[in-house]
Amino acid sequence: MMSREAKKNLTRRALMDAALNLVGEGENFARISLREVAKNAGVVPTSFYRHFRDMEELGLNIVDDLGMLLRKLMRSARQADNYLEDLTQKSIDTYADFVVRHQNHFYFMCQCRTGGTPALRNAIRQELRFFANELAADICQQPSLAKVSQEDLELIAQHIVATVAETTIDLLDLAGTQRNFRHDYTKQLQKKLRLIWLGARVWRSHRQENV
Amino acid sequence: MMSREAKKNLTRRALMDAALNLVGEGENFARISLREVAKNAGVVPTSFYRHFRDMEELGLNIVDDLGMLLRKLMRSARQADNYLEDLTQKSIDTYADFVVRHQNHFYFMCQCRTGGTPALRNAIRQELRFFANELAADICQQPSLAKVSQEDLELIAQHIVATVAETTIDLLDLAGTQRNFRHDYTKQLQKKLRLIWLGARVWRSHRQENV
Repeated sequence: MMSREAKKNLTRRALMDAALNLVGEGENFARISLREVAKNAGVVPTSFYRHFRDMEELGLNIVDDLGMLLRKLMRSARQADNYLEDLTQKSIDTYADFVVRHQNHFYFMCQCRTGGTPALRNAIRQELRFFANELAADICQQPSLAKVSQEDLELIAQHIVATVAETTIDLLDLAGTQRNFRHDYTKQLQKKLRLIWLGARVWRSHRQENV
Repeated sequence: MMSREAKKNLTRRALMDAALNLVGEGENFARISLREVAKNAGVVPTSFYRHFRDMEELGLNIVDDLGMLLRKLMRSARQADNYLEDLTQKSIDTYADFVVRHQNHFYFMCQCRTGGTPALRNAIRQELRFFANELAADICQQPSLAKVSQEDLELIAQHIVATVAETTIDLLDLAGTQRNFRHDYTKQLQKKLRLIWLGARVWRSHRQENV
């Protein structure tokens, strides 16, 4: 028999999934009502309040979910050989597969990162920042980046993470509609990351570069 | 006396401004109703339909507006000496001032670029693409980029435009709240663009770079 706690968790999960499914169907999270989410989760609206104060709190919980997804993605990236030297087709393909597999979460991220409430925007900013810090901790061991200061390493990592995040809406929007889009996406993102990486290798902190 | 045409244009403009003001006040464009826009513009809802089919069409007209703003920004950037060699504090300050001066438009862009309807997302994608093509036409004359193919020049320009666009929500969100944010923003965006630019200078098209 299911415990009270387990049942509560199931309903909570059903509410979050209902919101994510509506986002996946093309709705903007900002205009989804609490009533609609409850209906799609098969619960009465008053039951919603036993789990979340409002739609923003539900959204913040989805951001936590997204954080776990990003950590999982990071772990699988780190398991690959040459994960840093090798910003290749393979690691970008892994990312693209991951995004498509969790597309509702990534649609949510794209929407709320710039269009969520200030609290949601800030929470997503913090998640991406965490992810960039993890990457910075890895790249600081690269001998080719020995002349880059810690501050600049963090900035390089943020630039890489932002570039990947920034291209995600195109991946979600166009992968299903344009022939060869997935191939072009991989090639183009690879080149964008390589530009940053090449720039990083010739970067000298504490010196005014002539650009 | 004002002509019928001029009056029509005034109302049209008032409707677009009403929507932009609501966005500037923190609303998400996706959840603003036609009724609300009409009310804020001081017209009856039925009058809305004489100007726009629906909120999406109003949004597409705001994208056209944004296109004009971006062209204006491009022109003023091009007037500066060394506009390309010189991705300096000055040109980024010009951008930041411009964004703050037209902040409702830029909030709208940030929201709709990832959270608008498919038609709105696509229209903004096309505007940014146009802007990147203009930049590509300028940078192709740089002697330091002589070894870069046309295709890769376009990609580099897209990467620069996307990096600037991507940082805009932070500029809008944080400029008013964090001390020194504006200074940090300028410094960090300058470094991000410089990384791309340094990468571009050592870029060789048609050669597999070791990264």
